[in-house]
Amino acid sequence: MVVNHAQLQNWVSQIFIKNGFSQEDSNCCAEVLVHADLRGIDSHGVARLSGYLRLIKDGRINPKPNFKIVRETPSTATLDADAGIGLVSAPYAMKLAIEKAKIAGSGWVAIANSNHFGIAGHHTLMAAAQDMIGYAITNASPLVTPALGAERMLGTNPICYAIPAGDEPTFVLDMATSAASNGKLEIAERAEKQIPEGWLVNKDGSPSTNPGELKNGGMVLTLGSDMAHGSYKGYGLSAMVDIFSGVLSGANYGPWVPPFVSFLNPLENSPGKGIGHFVGAWRVDGFRDIQEFKDNMDIWIRRFRQTIPNEPNHPVQIPGDNERLEAEKRRLNGVPLVKKVWDDLISIGYEFENPINQYAEPTT
Amino acid sequence: MVVNHAQLQNWVSQIFIKNGFSQEDSNCCAEVLVHADLRGIDSHGVARLSGYLRLIKDGRINPKPNFKIVRETPSTATLDADAGIGLVSAPYAMKLAIEKAKIAGSGWVAIANSNHFGIAGHHTLMAAAQDMIGYAITNASPLVTPALGAERMLGTNPICYAIPAGDEPTFVLDMATSAASNGKLEIAERAEKQIPEGWLVNKDGSPSTNPGELKNGGMVLTLGSDMAHGSYKGYGLSAMVDIFSGVLSGANYGPWVPPFVSFLNPLENSPGKGIGHFVGAWRVDGFRDIQEFKDNMDIWIRRFRQTIPNEPNHPVQIPGDNERLEAEKRRLNGVPLVKKVWDDLISIGYEFENPINQYAEPTT
Repeated sequence: MVVNHAQLQNWVSQIFIKNGFSQEDSNCCAEVLVHADLRGIDSHGVARLSGYLRLIKDGRINPKPNFKIVRETPSTATLDADAGIGLVSAPYAMKLAIEKAKIAGSGWVAIANSNHFGIAGHHTLMAAAQDMIGYAITNASPLVTPALGAERMLGTNPICYAIPAGDEPTFVLDMATSAASNGKLEIAERAEKQIPEGWLVNKDGSPSTNPGELKNGGMVLTLGSDMAHGSYKGYGLSAMVDIFSGVLSGANYGPWVPPFVSFLNPLENSPGKGIGHFVGAWRVDGFRDIQEFKDNMDIWIRRFRQTIPNEPNHPVQIPGDNERLEAEKRRLNGVPLVKKVWDDLISIGYEFENPINQYAEPTT
Repeated sequence: MVVNHAQLQNWVSQIFIKNGFSQEDSNCCAEVLVHADLRGIDSHGVARLSGYLRLIKDGRINPKPNFKIVRETPSTATLDADAGIGLVSAPYAMKLAIEKAKIAGSGWVAIANSNHFGIAGHHTLMAAAQDMIGYAITNASPLVTPALGAERMLGTNPICYAIPAGDEPTFVLDMATSAASNGKLEIAERAEKQIPEGWLVNKDGSPSTNPGELKNGGMVLTLGSDMAHGSYKGYGLSAMVDIFSGVLSGANYGPWVPPFVSFLNPLENSPGKGIGHFVGAWRVDGFRDIQEFKDNMDIWIRRFRQTIPNEPNHPVQIPGDNERLEAEKRRLNGVPLVKKVWDDLISIGYEFENPINQYAEPTT
């Protein structure tokens, strides 16, 4: 099925309202979720709506949080998100970072006591729209083993930068620090396809090409896949994300990060509150004249597009190209939803007396 | 040969003095270079001394630069290093970042018109010693191809974080964003050993396990090695480093970054000045009470050391462990120097009438 993105967003917003969220917060949640669907990061869009709703029902997500800034300097702050949803706390924190950057040149907000924040690209693009470089990272439920290990200790812990350009589109790097993202593993599993070696090990730490091993206690490997190819670097980056998001903010970290799925309970005696994020913004003109910077970004982007390609028909891309082109297409043609997700939305529509069927068209 | 690190440092400092550097700058250069040798990053230590000296002789490194802050906000600045050496400009910029962080909570300095800055870990550890999280990145001579490409467009562009802990040692992630560092390739070539697939392609873009191909126009691959294993992520990180170091500072970027070797001239019509770095510091207590943070860092580190290992005798390590242990050993037993480097130092000693032989002991 295919749904117009604006109608989908409107529908999602109404569902959050019926779950006790304010109008403003509901709009924000819907915007971030559908932004993922627009950019083709389907694993982080409305596919996750039922997961969020279960966490709300179980009382693990607070629909009416009281955000509190617990510490502050001119360019830094820590936000206690009061068990609120990351889809709201992260944009809130990014707005604060941007305000600080306007005065101090840069702004940084660590967020504790939060829940999953959707796609990092949404938050960093807020900064890029203000001629700033946006940065966002988050920890997540443990699924990834450190290099040399055979235990779930880290999430897929993404790193994201959005860097504005002039006539060229914004540079957006939005990457999991694992060898493969959750989304790619889900797609392979749904299609019952084998995956490349170097993505996964089974519960005993042996290499596996079966994505189903993840449900049997398997573990995702870090970027680099093995020691000879730098898995310790992917581990180091993932660890850095975990420390900023968890240790610096006062949230949980490592194996104590609470699971996204509601049927797993958070560990007892965990050292922090909820999951954590870390967002920030550098004002470009804190370093260089903005027009000069944009002109040079355009030169950078054009020169990199002209890199001699290794295969004639596969030109070198700029980070963010794929997602941007997908968004242009989907804005025009609607957001395609696979059957499993569509069925999910149908039942959510019935449960909250707001059927989605009215908006959808079958894929042609 | 083995040389006591303090004597080696003293000797290096005298060599810089004889090359027109001030006493203070010479000490700084020697400290950064020998710090690399102590930490076992031999490729970035005194092995590079002759390379720096040739650049000084050729007038590409200015021994008496006039550092100028060309733009500034409370938490940001841009430094024009006046063609000075990165071994001095980077610590200078880090001091400025730390001063800004003391007042504004964080501090960021982009550096243009500079030369290679040695090991990033030296600069970030300056911040960690002040209860801050240190960050340092730099671009470098083009040697690496972007994912999907077959052209030298990027340096090995390292990323470094130093994060202080309590009773546990400082977390130091200091990593090239390429699949293998220059140092590892040099070691393999010196030993005439084959390298793993996924590190290198030859000048036509075909995979190669011969490290010698690098001298035949070959290219290093980015972290991830191939598209299926996330080479676009390594490329994205390397690109980010290049943009902060080059585009944001006003230095050169991409294929225009000037080569380190003096027999290659910088490209004409290059868009910026020299090579660029970017350093910064976040004050930990801008986010969380420092003791609370350190206690939780200790918990983090201890828990990660206890990760179930994939092989019983290979425990999971903390980023920085190897380098720290090596430094402890070398501080005690001296810095070992391979013949090629030792011969280099001998001739430098004769040229500048300050023989090194007096300090060395043969390896036992």
